[in-house]
Amino acid sequence: MDWQQRPRCDEVPAWAALQSHFAQHFSGDAAFDLRRAFAEDAQRCERFSLEAAGLLADLSKNLIDPAAQALLTRLAHECGIEAQRDAMLAGARINRSEGRAVTHTQWRLPAPHADMAATRADMLAFAESVRADGAITDVVNIGVGGSDLGPRLVVQALRASGQASGPRLHFVANMDGHELAELLPRLTPGGTLFLLASKTFGTAETMQNAASARAWFTAQGGTDVARHFVALSANASAAAAFGAGRCFGFDDGVGGRFSLWSPIGLSIAIAAGTPAFQALLAGAHAMDRHFAEAPLPRSLPVQLALLDLWYRNFHGFSSRCVAPYHHGLRRLPAYLQQLEMESNGKRVDTQGRALRFHSAGTTWGEVGSNSQHAFFQKLHQGTQPVPVEFVLARTAAHALPGHQRKLLAHALSQARALMLGQQGDAPERDFPGNRPSTVLLLPDLSPRSLGTLLALYEHRSFVLGALWGVNPFDQWGVELGKRHAGELERCLLGEGELSELDASTRALVERLRAAGATG
Amino acid sequence: MDWQQRPRCDEVPAWAALQSHFAQHFSGDAAFDLRRAFAEDAQRCERFSLEAAGLLADLSKNLIDPAAQALLTRLAHECGIEAQRDAMLAGARINRSEGRAVTHTQWRLPAPHADMAATRADMLAFAESVRADGAITDVVNIGVGGSDLGPRLVVQALRASGQASGPRLHFVANMDGHELAELLPRLTPGGTLFLLASKTFGTAETMQNAASARAWFTAQGGTDVARHFVALSANASAAAAFGAGRCFGFDDGVGGRFSLWSPIGLSIAIAAGTPAFQALLAGAHAMDRHFAEAPLPRSLPVQLALLDLWYRNFHGFSSRCVAPYHHGLRRLPAYLQQLEMESNGKRVDTQGRALRFHSAGTTWGEVGSNSQHAFFQKLHQGTQPVPVEFVLARTAAHALPGHQRKLLAHALSQARALMLGQQGDAPERDFPGNRPSTVLLLPDLSPRSLGTLLALYEHRSFVLGALWGVNPFDQWGVELGKRHAGELERCLLGEGELSELDASTRALVERLRAAGATG
Repeated sequence: MDWQQRPRCDEVPAWAALQSHFAQHFSGDAAFDLRRAFAEDAQRCERFSLEAAGLLADLSKNLIDPAAQALLTRLAHECGIEAQRDAMLAGARINRSEGRAVTHTQWRLPAPHADMAATRADMLAFAESVRADGAITDVVNIGVGGSDLGPRLVVQALRASGQASGPRLHFVANMDGHELAELLPRLTPGGTLFLLASKTFGTAETMQNAASARAWFTAQGGTDVARHFVALSANASAAAAFGAGRCFGFDDGVGGRFSLWSPIGLSIAIAAGTPAFQALLAGAHAMDRHFAEAPLPRSLPVQLALLDLWYRNFHGFSSRCVAPYHHGLRRLPAYLQQLEMESNGKRVDTQGRALRFHSAGTTWGEVGSNSQHAFFQKLHQGTQPVPVEFVLARTAAHALPGHQRKLLAHALSQARALMLGQQGDAPERDFPGNRPSTVLLLPDLSPRSLGTLLALYEHRSFVLGALWGVNPFDQWGVELGKRHAGELERCLLGEGELSELDASTRALVERLRAAGATG
Repeated sequence: MDWQQRPRCDEVPAWAALQSHFAQHFSGDAAFDLRRAFAEDAQRCERFSLEAAGLLADLSKNLIDPAAQALLTRLAHECGIEAQRDAMLAGARINRSEGRAVTHTQWRLPAPHADMAATRADMLAFAESVRADGAITDVVNIGVGGSDLGPRLVVQALRASGQASGPRLHFVANMDGHELAELLPRLTPGGTLFLLASKTFGTAETMQNAASARAWFTAQGGTDVARHFVALSANASAAAAFGAGRCFGFDDGVGGRFSLWSPIGLSIAIAAGTPAFQALLAGAHAMDRHFAEAPLPRSLPVQLALLDLWYRNFHGFSSRCVAPYHHGLRRLPAYLQQLEMESNGKRVDTQGRALRFHSAGTTWGEVGSNSQHAFFQKLHQGTQPVPVEFVLARTAAHALPGHQRKLLAHALSQARALMLGQQGDAPERDFPGNRPSTVLLLPDLSPRSLGTLLALYEHRSFVLGALWGVNPFDQWGVELGKRHAGELERCLLGEGELSELDASTRALVERLRAAGATG
């Protein structure tokens, strides 16, 4: 099948078959029950468990049966997922609304294209020179969105795993000056390297923070801007005009939310060193190979995407809760929010037709075990089920006794309690059970495992977007707000025409201007 | 009306009237449109704006009309909200499933009950002694859930606002040992004070982290456990048995998620000092007065709760996105997740009857402007609207030029773009608009404003729970998972009976045990 001729999920025969199957087995009085499913099928756990590149996924505690799984897999095949996957991995121009190929998987090839290989070598050599430079004590990554969330997550994870051995890494993303202002007093100009991460070198937040950082640097007596500011950008001339001494470039096929493998990941290489960065790439590449080679029934990205579709479009669930049980993964939900909702929060398919079903739900969550003491009340006893994704690492990198065993016990016990429920001695102590969850088990939180996990999530998003017929690689929805912002900034300065604003925005602008607080 | 005789929201006449009104004006072809509503009503912005204790709330960009607002307010009255509010504020035993009053508002009275006043004076004197003790450079709050999220949020906010002048504050919550293990190498036993925050002094995470901290302390040569470990707990004898030198107690009417005003907030007082802590209390008390005195149509907690109910039970929205545009409020969504979902994520009312409508949806979000580069794509162009709550502070506490004006412009422009939408030159560039949002505007992020904001959210949750007929002050749903955890820990140790486990949990336990990684 030609990847350009692919049908949308609701246009293939398996869609209607799934509707019938759902109506017959998953709704009304005969609704599927997990406890019964386990009782009736001794093989259920094995049937719904998958391994991929060292990760184990136990999908058995989900509201799905073997017939639904088979129909969903058929749906993926009927949508031409194999051809679309192959086209993406081969570098076809599948991001058609922007006229681009998608190249993030190429950046993690063991032997990439010569340009990429040269850039990677340059960037790693630079990272090692920074690590060896005793004068540099602090590195500040200034970037937002994909230039922030991925590197921040990975650096946090590797730090928690004891893999961060270089200078102190800091991340500044927000237009809100409080973020940068809180950091600056802890820095010295001579001891600090700023990484300016922006593909276009035009992102409003990043440009504002970069300008403020440079102003601070010179005001504090810093003289060598070129040494202390480097750019990670596809726009080398703008970076040079700013004064950045180096610019590590990349091609326009690297989307922001897929970019940590490219020079946007320089902060990772500085924090953890070349072997760790290469292990991260190798882990991701191992998942790429799994995705390329595993048949659809054994493909973990495909089966997770199909479960997402099953929950969103048949069960009607509007969100998924991600509960990473590892301090180093505490920002995994924030990272996934961009990856999943920016990729697939779309209303029209690639042919411009409105979708007749729902696309991306809400991805949300917090680190476990903390979240047990926050919102798990609702997961157990709320009026609607929310599928939960538990992410566990088998081994710990610390030596504190007792913690890891108890942590894993807590995670497993939550998943078990959600499924089993319990009749209490008072109505408020009843737990209905039959609430779904998935367990993703990593051997550890090494750079390699982390690369594998993040590549898994990337491919899962891609498959889900492909099934829905949307373009997971554009993000036109962020443009309108950007355009209004300039106009409103002028209004706050007293230069814009307030009468052109809606009454609510106008009243808020007037209130803010009256307070004179718009400096 | 006696607060104990209160009807549930779906049992009062206004409920049926709201159903009719919704069907007639908010569904199908005649569905409400925000742009039309502003065009047809020049007073809309004023009509839907409220001020309370210095906060401004602009509710005008929500999918609501004056008739719905009037019916909702009538609903609140028919449910006896005034009597329930008065009962809570008067200390009646409204938390019936636990047989307790609810006392968090008493902890912020200017002149509280003698016991509370004495405890507050003790705690503030201790905080000042720590601030004046040059030997103490680091303070570690060990607590989880309400003993972590509230204090952590407030300390972050006051730090961003330049109000944190005391020793360095750290927070450790997770059972995952990586959190504590990452911190310990940065501490010295002689320079560190540990605050052990647990109402029962039995919370698994807190006890584990406290034990590990004490073991580290003595292994590093620390000798005076009583000086370096203090407890914030209602269980003084357990705290003494641990070796804590001081225990700041409180009554059982202080629920975890409402406890930052009590000794659980000691970390705040140490970080920011007595005047800041008192300003925080005074701000909260000002909101308590507003809640007690404002008639329902002008009561901000009541009107926000009614909007929540309108969206959840009539529009059918399953979540609300909170976007604080302040770096200091970056954990506000996590704090609200506990406050709102633990309070109102319930299936039965206080009489034990199953609800026939949905209770708490999902509260989620991330700090702005970062979130614009993460999931705002979905908010603008996803298939379903998600109400967004923008939280802004008018003035900044930093001196970096340009940032604050641009930050506020970004926030207003997002709200405006969500409402107005736009026809693009290609389907993927169309924005449907008519997407709802609320703006909450604080004068600044001072301790007083922050106290006012958090008290507003507390009362909003209480009102919503009271309308739904649930008990917002218990949390039985967290018990089942706790009970399973002990059994699973024994299984991981090789001591439990695996054959009693479900097949999925058993397989996972076996996998974890085989790797020998359960130390």
